[in-house]
Amino acid sequence: MADFTVAEFETRMSLAQSAMTKAGLDAILLCTEAELRYFSGFRTQFWQSPTRPWFLVLPRNGDPIAVIPGIGADLMSRTWVRDIRTWASPDPVDDGVSLLADILSVYNKVGLPMGQEASLRMPLGDFYRVQQKSCVEFVDCSELIKAIRIVKSDAEIAILRIICGIGSNAFDRAADLFCAGQPLSEAFRAFKIALLQEGAEDVPYLVGAAGQGGYGDVISPPGKTPLQNGDVLMLDTGSSLQGYFCDFDRNFAIDHASDAAKLAYDTLWQATEAGLQTARAGATCADLFHAMHKTLGGGKSDVGRYGHGLGIQLTEYPSIASFDDTVLQPGMVMTLEPSLTISNGKMMVHEENILITEDAPILLTKRAAPELPVIR
Amino acid sequence: MADFTVAEFETRMSLAQSAMTKAGLDAILLCTEAELRYFSGFRTQFWQSPTRPWFLVLPRNGDPIAVIPGIGADLMSRTWVRDIRTWASPDPVDDGVSLLADILSVYNKVGLPMGQEASLRMPLGDFYRVQQKSCVEFVDCSELIKAIRIVKSDAEIAILRIICGIGSNAFDRAADLFCAGQPLSEAFRAFKIALLQEGAEDVPYLVGAAGQGGYGDVISPPGKTPLQNGDVLMLDTGSSLQGYFCDFDRNFAIDHASDAAKLAYDTLWQATEAGLQTARAGATCADLFHAMHKTLGGGKSDVGRYGHGLGIQLTEYPSIASFDDTVLQPGMVMTLEPSLTISNGKMMVHEENILITEDAPILLTKRAAPELPVIR
Repeated sequence: MADFTVAEFETRMSLAQSAMTKAGLDAILLCTEAELRYFSGFRTQFWQSPTRPWFLVLPRNGDPIAVIPGIGADLMSRTWVRDIRTWASPDPVDDGVSLLADILSVYNKVGLPMGQEASLRMPLGDFYRVQQKSCVEFVDCSELIKAIRIVKSDAEIAILRIICGIGSNAFDRAADLFCAGQPLSEAFRAFKIALLQEGAEDVPYLVGAAGQGGYGDVISPPGKTPLQNGDVLMLDTGSSLQGYFCDFDRNFAIDHASDAAKLAYDTLWQATEAGLQTARAGATCADLFHAMHKTLGGGKSDVGRYGHGLGIQLTEYPSIASFDDTVLQPGMVMTLEPSLTISNGKMMVHEENILITEDAPILLTKRAAPELPVIR
Repeated sequence: MADFTVAEFETRMSLAQSAMTKAGLDAILLCTEAELRYFSGFRTQFWQSPTRPWFLVLPRNGDPIAVIPGIGADLMSRTWVRDIRTWASPDPVDDGVSLLADILSVYNKVGLPMGQEASLRMPLGDFYRVQQKSCVEFVDCSELIKAIRIVKSDAEIAILRIICGIGSNAFDRAADLFCAGQPLSEAFRAFKIALLQEGAEDVPYLVGAAGQGGYGDVISPPGKTPLQNGDVLMLDTGSSLQGYFCDFDRNFAIDHASDAAKLAYDTLWQATEAGLQTARAGATCADLFHAMHKTLGGGKSDVGRYGHGLGIQLTEYPSIASFDDTVLQPGMVMTLEPSLTISNGKMMVHEENILITEDAPILLTKRAAPELPVIR
């Protein structure tokens, strides 16, 4: 079960504890899949079931405490977490509330991620009850958690490198997988199977679109419309390995490409080049945004940013956007994702995954072809 | 894109509006994937990205209002929702807060699911800001939403029937997919591919385990340990079609089965039979629990219940548990999922998916073999 060494988790915990000391927090309460997994190593698809809440308490002093439904005790016992408290869940009257409140009641000030990108994965009514029973003051600790998670360890990077390679290998088979006349839904199915065959453990995310010379939307499930000559087919996958994601897309022209499509592709490819030349330790996300934006000619799309962090979630902070002054650091893994409006209702998007270093970034994905590939 | 007719969504909306009138609510605010999809038809895997919040407002009078990031406007415009308000997200200063608060400010009392199984899929800090800006009183409306979603329409049942059939067809290929010496992770991979080949759109959930005569855990990802003769292999899949789930498992003995494993399997099979004989309109979930529990001899496992509702989530309310007095109604789709502790640290679980009717339930899954199937 262990995806990482105990030392890796001890480092994560110790970074959190230093940050808690600095922020004057007595403990941190976590309740979402990503944060629980990051600090405990507890990895399961059982999060698909909304029925039961799961909690991890990180005290400023001492060991992490898992406060979880009994059904998870066996799996949690195979992580580095030793202090595991369970209750029989689901319980319609008290679904872990008293147990959690008891544990928290020894603290005064407890951090909880409440900022951008955060969710509260427990019933809000139960959160109010925990607050009342424990008499704890909850404060936002989103920035504290982000500052730790944003820099990936060598062990994390090693997994990210593999899953990006798996995605690249699957895209390399495009000419054998996709063809004119194939319903888009079948292209998706073929690609998911290829990703699994190449070594992905899961394909939690596959979106895409196809349309004459471009597409109107980048977050849709596929319809049954057959691919046509002149279509640009875009597939964007978040495949995963040990719970770590790649997140990138590729574009393919079916049979032939219009000049407008070729031009849009070239513009996006050049924008990514500008991103690759700018992305290094010391630059900010805003710098990276402006470098790509300039190359794109200042057009805009509805995506809202040109990339983001990547790791145990399909998208992580920071955002490559004009408003984001996050300074890039070695060990950050990012997507470069410029997008372009071609004409009314048609767009194109391009994406690579990179590792930030002191020098030029390391491409984790196999660089997209400089010209729009044509599938005949 | 449309998974259902407009009439289907109008019915859902009208049921919500009647319930709001009864409960004295002016509107309902929804922010989670399942609820947004149920009432709008907005289906996308983009929920994998935690960056942006998404909102749907159901007024007691009038049409639903989608309050969403610009990136989703195109997809939302292909649903039945006509009133779509967007903002450029992500926005670190005001990520939809003012827009949502403005829309809500005309109401006094707004329902929000805050009860069991609910999550708040937006930053808690932003929720507090919406509350303050809108001057709205938020009250829990979980029961109201559950009462609507718990009964499936014919159109929903039709999809559930197909995906349960797809899962059954994939399990029918077990003898060709699994064998001694195969690492468990490769058995998972082979099964995921089989599910996609049989017609599943996605496999958001596949857990399982293998062990001599039983297994210790039912929510784990697979390790690399090869299957051994005498192992019982259990795979439990939540595969999906148009966003609707099957959720059932099958057990297989590798090469041979111990008497203890055969007995446990038989006990679970008989428990499911008892469930099938009890599950009909008018009985309660508690009745169903007790019928199965009696057959199991009163042993207990850590699962906490013997099944649950099924639909657009892997698990939905109600729970088949002694505490759940929900009365079964025609159109409810449920899993029967008795589990049994065989010996210390070894368990077995068995699961079928059924449709509740006035009479005997209709099996949506192909009934498991009465004897533990052996793969040679």
